[in-house]
Amino acid sequence: MTQSPILLSDFQSQLPKHHSGQDAILEWIAAAHAQAEITLQQPASSEEREALVRKYRKLVMRFGCSTDRIRSRNSALDDFTHTDWDRMRIFQLKEYPSGKPCGERSRFYGEVSGQAFEQFYEGEVDPPPVIIHVTCTGYVSPSGAQRLVAKRDWGRSTEVIHAYHMGCYASLPAIRMAAGFLERGKARVDIVHTELCTLHMDPRQHLPEQLVVQTLFADGLIRYSASRAGDGAPAQQALAVLATREEIVPNTEDAMSWMVSDFGMQMTLSRKVPDHIRNGLGAFLDRLADSAGLTQAQLCEKALFAIHPGGPRIIDEIAHHLGLHPEQVQASNAILRDYGNMSSATLPHVWKAILEDEAVQPGTLIVSLAFGPGLTISGAILRKSA
Amino acid sequence: MTQSPILLSDFQSQLPKHHSGQDAILEWIAAAHAQAEITLQQPASSEEREALVRKYRKLVMRFGCSTDRIRSRNSALDDFTHTDWDRMRIFQLKEYPSGKPCGERSRFYGEVSGQAFEQFYEGEVDPPPVIIHVTCTGYVSPSGAQRLVAKRDWGRSTEVIHAYHMGCYASLPAIRMAAGFLERGKARVDIVHTELCTLHMDPRQHLPEQLVVQTLFADGLIRYSASRAGDGAPAQQALAVLATREEIVPNTEDAMSWMVSDFGMQMTLSRKVPDHIRNGLGAFLDRLADSAGLTQAQLCEKALFAIHPGGPRIIDEIAHHLGLHPEQVQASNAILRDYGNMSSATLPHVWKAILEDEAVQPGTLIVSLAFGPGLTISGAILRKSA
Repeated sequence: MTQSPILLSDFQSQLPKHHSGQDAILEWIAAAHAQAEITLQQPASSEEREALVRKYRKLVMRFGCSTDRIRSRNSALDDFTHTDWDRMRIFQLKEYPSGKPCGERSRFYGEVSGQAFEQFYEGEVDPPPVIIHVTCTGYVSPSGAQRLVAKRDWGRSTEVIHAYHMGCYASLPAIRMAAGFLERGKARVDIVHTELCTLHMDPRQHLPEQLVVQTLFADGLIRYSASRAGDGAPAQQALAVLATREEIVPNTEDAMSWMVSDFGMQMTLSRKVPDHIRNGLGAFLDRLADSAGLTQAQLCEKALFAIHPGGPRIIDEIAHHLGLHPEQVQASNAILRDYGNMSSATLPHVWKAILEDEAVQPGTLIVSLAFGPGLTISGAILRKSA
Repeated sequence: MTQSPILLSDFQSQLPKHHSGQDAILEWIAAAHAQAEITLQQPASSEEREALVRKYRKLVMRFGCSTDRIRSRNSALDDFTHTDWDRMRIFQLKEYPSGKPCGERSRFYGEVSGQAFEQFYEGEVDPPPVIIHVTCTGYVSPSGAQRLVAKRDWGRSTEVIHAYHMGCYASLPAIRMAAGFLERGKARVDIVHTELCTLHMDPRQHLPEQLVVQTLFADGLIRYSASRAGDGAPAQQALAVLATREEIVPNTEDAMSWMVSDFGMQMTLSRKVPDHIRNGLGAFLDRLADSAGLTQAQLCEKALFAIHPGGPRIIDEIAHHLGLHPEQVQASNAILRDYGNMSSATLPHVWKAILEDEAVQPGTLIVSLAFGPGLTISGAILRKSA
């Protein structure tokens, strides 16, 4: 068993088509909730109609993620840029108060994911040995990765793997899979995330937890490569993977769920999730640190923390719990602020920001933490290389 | 890079709750198609009603997989055991002519998959280091694997990986993933397939290709373990993995698709698929054989062929194309006959049958072939060990 460090490098992100301020998104979501109920209830008077508009605007503004945590988010879908419900692709709310069912959402996902792969590999001549496609927001085969390989006639050189439906932490199992392929002789593994979270909104879901989810998640597209140090390793900056660890917290199987439902994917989120994370995190970090020959105290003192923003307050809560300085979670907060929660694409965006930040010195340790159904806590320790 | 052979062993299958003769299944599907149209068309007279019943019975009997290729199939869903449409869980066809949309299908999948994991690990005291859960027929998190680990408090010892949405060939990428984990120091990787294909029927889909799909696919539940030879390797019989190979055939991205749609997952299948497979297979087999230090001619002369029955005639066509003897595909035909196409669970059922067949001598080579969207051809060469 050789264990030379895996390097993550060549991060490239794409901006989904539409960039919107969080204030505009909150207004759109409030209007969508109101329209869904107007379609269902068919209010007779304009007073009743306006009462619904006021009611849902108040709810969304109260429970939705406010602009002090998230400033802007990106989305691939044109629907979010206007409220002409008849002109929507998915959210034709006058006819479908939940938006269209799964089929049309899948077709749109397939188109956008396909274009993203085309763009990520535009001008690339040499087929990558392995592409791991990561998503929990669209299940369409052939996938964008498979279509690319079929079109380019890369089929004899490129192996496609789907790392689907693992949730927000999926970059970390994808890296472990990649490490296995490198260990077995592949020179390079590309990991490509195409997450279209906003596609799965259902404006009939008015519960506070659903309003948090709807106003938190965003679309994200990012690609990077894993390779072995010293083995055709990249000359450019990279993150070395020192350790990874993943645990499922006992008796938490009902804390969070993510499944294919009638109108896209549906999430449930118990209020106990932050407690479960806080309770389990210390011992988890001890074990993660230990597997890299470090201690939790060393990490909390000097590492940067790339924390997946599973909820709007989770970065703050973890930073407080571990006694971190604001600079240690600056990149995590910046990605949440500018992009929202892009599910599995989020941590790679934080890594990219840290890698490109010249103020972060080579040698800096980066603790990565993400969470998902299970309840799964997944982590890694990375080190910025020269 | 060490490459000691991976051993597959400890195959255990579960029978889904209901075992039905193919003749009874064909009658049920014919009745379901008729009821879907009766619900939609609301025929005024009993003559019109009976005409619909006759029409769809004729179509299903003409295009459905006949009892000479498939004798029986298994299904987890009670619905298929009667035609009292009001009493159905999914196929309440008087109200939902396509059956219920995705949510209820996901919930049922979650229940059955959860029970399957409980049963597979009943009485097992030691947590497995890794569980790879393979499926393309149900996307529910926490998965059965995650629930098991959360309930048993195995979270610190057992890593769960989802190998989802790769289609019928998914056992082979799962084995490559497992090989990576073994290579990186895990002593054992369990691979568990829970495929509930019959859950995704839509009786409004009357096209011949859809009738083939609906009358071909079945449910399958199987578990096995991968370990390294000589490294706590099992004493019992095993299959050694000599080589695996996977290719996407150029310009075939529209030949086959599998995606989340409005009423469960939907498959499309072009008539050109058998041509694509035949055209690509010879060169693929050459490369697969070569990577095990063998030739295609050697394999065709003496190996057994575990062929995924992607269509009712594909085993015959490949056997004819490669000039194989009937005994070389006997196990593949027997699994198709007794179980139908269980998607990714099918090849492991064929492997189990070969492993347990005392007439198959130790040392026998087994060529495995399976197909899926991409168009992907996936293969392996295994050897039965003592």
